[in-house]
Amino acid sequence: MQIREATEADYEKIWPIFHEVASAGETYAYPREVTKNEGKKLWMELPRKTYVVENNEGILGTYYIKTNQAGPGSHVCNCGYMVASSSRGQGIATVMCEHSQKMAVELGYEAMQFNFVASTNEGAVRLWQKLGFGIVGRLPQAFKHPSRGYVDALIMYKWLKT
Amino acid sequence: MQIREATEADYEKIWPIFHEVASAGETYAYPREVTKNEGKKLWMELPRKTYVVENNEGILGTYYIKTNQAGPGSHVCNCGYMVASSSRGQGIATVMCEHSQKMAVELGYEAMQFNFVASTNEGAVRLWQKLGFGIVGRLPQAFKHPSRGYVDALIMYKWLKT
Repeated sequence: MQIREATEADYEKIWPIFHEVASAGETYAYPREVTKNEGKKLWMELPRKTYVVENNEGILGTYYIKTNQAGPGSHVCNCGYMVASSSRGQGIATVMCEHSQKMAVELGYEAMQFNFVASTNEGAVRLWQKLGFGIVGRLPQAFKHPSRGYVDALIMYKWLKT
Repeated sequence: MQIREATEADYEKIWPIFHEVASAGETYAYPREVTKNEGKKLWMELPRKTYVVENNEGILGTYYIKTNQAGPGSHVCNCGYMVASSSRGQGIATVMCEHSQKMAVELGYEAMQFNFVASTNEGAVRLWQKLGFGIVGRLPQAFKHPSRGYVDALIMYKWLKT
């Protein structure tokens, strides 16, 4: 398993993962009916960097890193991570999150923030906590879950600079 | 004093207010060196609607309203308010915030969120609390204040739908 920066050509393999996650509507603040081109803009073009995790069989997961707020907030980054459903349970999210924290520091960021973690995404919340993120905010009923209705969204945050 | 939707021509009068607030770097997550064109994009084009407050003498303040998160978060809006320094202390922010809550409901939003309120902006924090917003999150040292250094940023939130 290796992580490398994504190339434009990788998007053909990233799109099925992105589409699967976004269209499920359970974890990300993307429109469920997002198109392939919109997905490319959101995942590959607007972020500062995009990475893929791959093995001999192909791309297993992907993440982006971007500046979360401009100006007085530009020392804090934001990341998003997606793992192909066929590759879950192998620790790929952990590998990506640890990698992203190193990249963040290399890029000059001092903290990392997740803006909108569905409170129903309990596996992710536990994982981010294990990796050092704290829950610093709770947005009441801010996430409209496709099967569970209005649920809270969490804000998670980790100071990275030592 | 009246509030109306901003026209493109209003930007000539909005820009001095925007520039004054953004370049101070004390309250908004905009680059302090923001240009006139970038300001137009940020304040007039990316938001869903932009409004101005005016009297016989001209534009006293301005606010925008936009969707805070796409997809499962699209029922929550975000607003930003700016008052000309020469017009402060006249309740203009209150008038704008109350107006924005009505507009938000008319536009179909169910809640309003402020993502990044500098904790040092105590007057604003008190005012939003008075107008029904709760502090739902605190981002440690997420705001780099020009004179006070790293300060916390607050997330404030109000459910609007009755």
